[in-house]
Amino acid sequence: MTALSLHPDRFFPADPATRKIARELFALVEHLPILSPHGHTDPKWFAADAPFEDATSLLLWPDHYVLRMLYSQGIAFEDLGIGDAAADRRKVWRLFGANYHLFRGTPSRLWLDHVFATVFGLTERLDARTADSYFDAIAAALATPAFRPRALFKRFNIEKLATTEGALDALGDHDVLARDWPGRVITTYRPDDVVDPDGANFTGNVESFGAVTGEATSTWQGYLAAHRIRRAYFRSRGATATDHGHPSAQSAELSAAEGQALLDRLLAGRREAGDAELFRAAMLTEMAKMSLEDGMTMQIHPGSFRNHNPQLFAQYGPNAGADIPVAMDYVRALKPLLDAVGNRADFTLILFTLDESTYARELAPLAGHYPCLKLGPAWWFHDSPEGMMRFRRMTTETAGFYNTAGFNDDTRAFLSIPARHDLARRIDAAWLAELVATHRLGEDEAQELVVALAYGLAKAAYKL
Amino acid sequence: MTALSLHPDRFFPADPATRKIARELFALVEHLPILSPHGHTDPKWFAADAPFEDATSLLLWPDHYVLRMLYSQGIAFEDLGIGDAAADRRKVWRLFGANYHLFRGTPSRLWLDHVFATVFGLTERLDARTADSYFDAIAAALATPAFRPRALFKRFNIEKLATTEGALDALGDHDVLARDWPGRVITTYRPDDVVDPDGANFTGNVESFGAVTGEATSTWQGYLAAHRIRRAYFRSRGATATDHGHPSAQSAELSAAEGQALLDRLLAGRREAGDAELFRAAMLTEMAKMSLEDGMTMQIHPGSFRNHNPQLFAQYGPNAGADIPVAMDYVRALKPLLDAVGNRADFTLILFTLDESTYARELAPLAGHYPCLKLGPAWWFHDSPEGMMRFRRMTTETAGFYNTAGFNDDTRAFLSIPARHDLARRIDAAWLAELVATHRLGEDEAQELVVALAYGLAKAAYKL
Amino acid sequence: MTALSLHPDRFFPADPATRKIARELFALVEHLPILSPHGHTDPKWFAADAPFEDATSLLLWPDHYVLRMLYSQGIAFEDLGIGDAAADRRKVWRLFGANYHLFRGTPSRLWLDHVFATVFGLTERLDARTADSYFDAIAAALATPAFRPRALFKRFNIEKLATTEGALDALGDHDVLARDWPGRVITTYRPDDVVDPDGANFTGNVESFGAVTGEATSTWQGYLAAHRIRRAYFRSRGATATDHGHPSAQSAELSAAEGQALLDRLLAGRREAGDAELFRAAMLTEMAKMSLEDGMTMQIHPGSFRNHNPQLFAQYGPNAGADIPVAMDYVRALKPLLDAVGNRADFTLILFTLDESTYARELAPLAGHYPCLKLGPAWWFHDSPEGMMRFRRMTTETAGFYNTAGFNDDTRAFLSIPARHDLARRIDAAWLAELVATHRLGEDEAQELVVALAYGLAKAAYKL
Repeated sequence: MTALSLHPDRFFPADPATRKIARELFALVEHLPILSPHGHTDPKWFAADAPFEDATSLLLWPDHYVLRMLYSQGIAFEDLGIGDAAADRRKVWRLFGANYHLFRGTPSRLWLDHVFATVFGLTERLDARTADSYFDAIAAALATPAFRPRALFKRFNIEKLATTEGALDALGDHDVLARDWPGRVITTYRPDDVVDPDGANFTGNVESFGAVTGEATSTWQGYLAAHRIRRAYFRSRGATATDHGHPSAQSAELSAAEGQALLDRLLAGRREAGDAELFRAAMLTEMAKMSLEDGMTMQIHPGSFRNHNPQLFAQYGPNAGADIPVAMDYVRALKPLLDAVGNRADFTLILFTLDESTYARELAPLAGHYPCLKLGPAWWFHDSPEGMMRFRRMTTETAGFYNTAGFNDDTRAFLSIPARHDLARRIDAAWLAELVATHRLGEDEAQELVVALAYGLAKAAYKL
Repeated sequence: MTALSLHPDRFFPADPATRKIARELFALVEHLPILSPHGHTDPKWFAADAPFEDATSLLLWPDHYVLRMLYSQGIAFEDLGIGDAAADRRKVWRLFGANYHLFRGTPSRLWLDHVFATVFGLTERLDARTADSYFDAIAAALATPAFRPRALFKRFNIEKLATTEGALDALGDHDVLARDWPGRVITTYRPDDVVDPDGANFTGNVESFGAVTGEATSTWQGYLAAHRIRRAYFRSRGATATDHGHPSAQSAELSAAEGQALLDRLLAGRREAGDAELFRAAMLTEMAKMSLEDGMTMQIHPGSFRNHNPQLFAQYGPNAGADIPVAMDYVRALKPLLDAVGNRADFTLILFTLDESTYARELAPLAGHYPCLKLGPAWWFHDSPEGMMRFRRMTTETAGFYNTAGFNDDTRAFLSIPARHDLARRIDAAWLAELVATHRLGEDEAQELVVALAYGLAKAAYKL
Repeated sequence: MTALSLHPDRFFPADPATRKIARELFALVEHLPILSPHGHTDPKWFAADAPFEDATSLLLWPDHYVLRMLYSQGIAFEDLGIGDAAADRRKVWRLFGANYHLFRGTPSRLWLDHVFATVFGLTERLDARTADSYFDAIAAALATPAFRPRALFKRFNIEKLATTEGALDALGDHDVLARDWPGRVITTYRPDDVVDPDGANFTGNVESFGAVTGEATSTWQGYLAAHRIRRAYFRSRGATATDHGHPSAQSAELSAAEGQALLDRLLAGRREAGDAELFRAAMLTEMAKMSLEDGMTMQIHPGSFRNHNPQLFAQYGPNAGADIPVAMDYVRALKPLLDAVGNRADFTLILFTLDESTYARELAPLAGHYPCLKLGPAWWFHDSPEGMMRFRRMTTETAGFYNTAGFNDDTRAFLSIPARHDLARRIDAAWLAELVATHRLGEDEAQELVVALAYGLAKAAYKL
């Protein structure tokens, strides 16, 4: 068995002088509260505060990063018990332990080790031999009150956490939370289900959207009014932001007549080539305009080819690890939206990308010019030591630090939240240390910035 | 107040052994004369040699890097006094000082600090508290003869500086310079105004082009002859190079009949889709052929989406900080030109890019094959410590050093010229030091190369 | 004259602590046997085992990296004796020596110095002054039995080497090898000549394909059957893999009727736009399906614009240094193939790219999901210290190490094989050392991985 320990200098640059600076900078933010303004944890956890069940259902099944790596190495989803609550979870965990070496060099490994060591106090590395003792130790811990969701939330020093719900979500868990445990867990308005004509059951969803809001959503004005109603309802459950997961960043501005004609074609099943993209595009601009009305911060997470693997999708549904990024354009795509509202300093639009070639070429120049734009942190596949460092190297010189929006963990894996913020804070400290060590930044400035990157910029950008 | 000082080891690698090598290499070039073969300073400054007015009009208003960063953070152009010579310049400068932290991590900050410290001898960092003393100190200095343009030019140890003028420019300032202060400031032929059918007043410009040259510029042959006449005139004012700022790098070769038909359509307002692009493309090839006749080095600066912000453009015109790069192709785009003249070793075509994904993929392989091609330095948004290092890392292994064209500052900000060359020389020293420290290059070779990169390659590529 | 020596720490990180780890890791793999599962050496060398002739024909003429760099600097192919066996080879070598400085900073320089120092024991750097003594020393060595191809093969400690032959190749040299010197040099099935309708003499090749196999290759089923026959024949000559050098990674799945109609159009000279691409695309999927039948590992090397320079191609044919990469898409292009066989863990498809922007965006996510996919090493222009490091930095965090296929040298330059593996092993040691030094990986894990990257992963991926 091999010892599991988190080195206090982990992720800092190897050069001793730079490492010393990084260590000093990190000390300023290590214990700051966590703001988690964008993520995908389940609000039910915090509403019900029921104990988590076991290592497999808590740490493996919901983690698409982990599933896809195991799958890529020929491990069948059947053998992982996916979609089968009755699966032998200990057996699944053993399979995971025996394959833990596959994660060498990946952020999943860094996050999981952090969870194992800091949340559960485990002191040996996970492998085939330790899998059983891991499973037992985690089960024992989860059975105690200290490992209930709300207790962990407090232990993790989370100040505020946003979940993400669809436009049709009743927000029942958030009702409970607002009443019961207010001010901590808020929602985010993500209306893809009623915005994406290529999504499942779009027509039905638009109909439900009308039922929920009392608006005639088959009319352009009614459809927009329904959004306004739902946005207000989400705001009443704490939401300060909207989020939009589109295939591209394409925006468009339509007249009411054009919008009505387009909606008519879509609802009547007479869609023409490009109509789905045009509708999503138009809705980005409409959402931006509504943000000007209600002050909600807007986020776009574009550029993922979702459910690339049709067999897996048919069997296991979305989030099975087969979402693959594609090349993106932002400069032409966002122009209609920016033409409409880009010069408004009272509007915040946070851009994300999975195409790193756009960092220095498009995103930093755009955010370094338009008052409304901010850059979200390195996203998904790039939320990693190398990925975050590339983000800083390729955006800072053009966008600066103050056109970025701080860190968000974007996770479904609740227990990994401290791990992800720890990693992000360390990488930011490492980047700032490098700037100081090469005399591109004063140490006093780095001290201010490390706090801004860990806390202040997210608070401001998301109005938390 | 915080001390302002330029660390002697700035921008060198943090590793002590590598830093030592970088320091020794930099010492070989620190005091070499400056060649500035491509830039946008105003020839009138040197022709008239009038004193500069004040900090705001000298350092802030002409600097699109600075303006766009301030604008991106919600500072209105009105409050910066843009386009308003009567604005309270001290007040504008105070606003700038109060927001100087926005430039942390950007090259603007590095350049400006260099100007403040070395040109004006300032010893405290610019901020809200020091803004007034800065304004006063700079005003006092500018009032003295030592801060006149020609005096600064000598103090900066500039051997030769090229400005950039349009095809219709009368070159009046260059006439003065050629007579009065010869051999120092030369022009560059940049005929975009008569080459780009999408530009303002193309038809009128082509007509003026005829008037200036006495050629029938509505005929393809007359139009080409007019270029030859202007190129010769520019050469008589020192020009050794042409420059072409096109949306893409598309080239084309047209027969005289095709060229005439295209020109006819454009001048008669009967343009078809693609005609403007085709005309620009054809002119790249024609310019290349004329370079074979007259020996002028050719430059292409493609890939900027100009004036992306229509509101700002309507109010303030071009160069307001809203030029955004887009993805580029060079391999297919340049093929017609390269098919025509690519194998000519007596022709030099210097390529620039704003799309770094083309460095290793397209530009280095092209320049590492075609005798006519050289790579220009990291351009615009990439003229920065990280950007220059990425350029070297991604081009050197395929193109080598000798297919690059040295540094150009490309600046409108005269006072920043020494700062930019200082930064470029330091980064090149850092890169060479890394190659030496990792035993990829001999120290004797690095010593030769650091001089070539700082001086020799530019002198050769631009025939200075 | 300057000493030529290979520093024992070459290519390791400069930071002393990291360098020490790299040194220790490299020691574990320095003397491991070489697996060369993909390359372009000439099987005749090993079949005939005739002495190599001289430095110029051995080291310069077959090396397209070297030729293109010399050509890019205005050195004519005539002066290099290309295509002229009667050229004065010593004179050519002198020209090379006088221009050896052009290779500073390139991997060619590193490989050649390794060959000069370790194969020929030369102790001074190549330049104009040493060119003659180099030529003589190399000639003298080549005349001895120790420098015959098979002797060098043993000296280089090559365990297995794959060459690459076209579908119509008679494999005569491999017949000799299988009989005479079995188990060492194997072939690879690269059927581009009968798969690419844009290639020279496609129709004639398809006819020959029929003659060679006895199949009616003008029918879709006969054409596919011919592939099966040739694949079996190649397997009998040791082949464990196929290779496909396509302009893009486009795949397609056609019904038999669609395939027949397409083949009919192509063979009858009635091709429509897109037909050539569609045929190549369909054949990728067919090859993948045949790999499921016969177990051969499949490789795709896409994305090179071949023979970009028509003048040079007309005079000197292919591989004259004018192949230039273009931007690539894999996500949409590979979907038809992956839909068909992507979930099969008993199939191995190794992907290569010349477009590094796809590493983190497309290739690592694809390989980090699909069981059949593995990533080939940094290819061609990117087979270099910086290129290999970028590959690791941009793929490891998403694909991990175990979805990569180890190193292949891909070379036509037999003597450079040890140099290339030495370089790759050092860079992998450097990357692993950095992960250890920054506490992202345990030292015990790095020790396992360095061996896997140098040997085990290639053995497994290519079934050697």
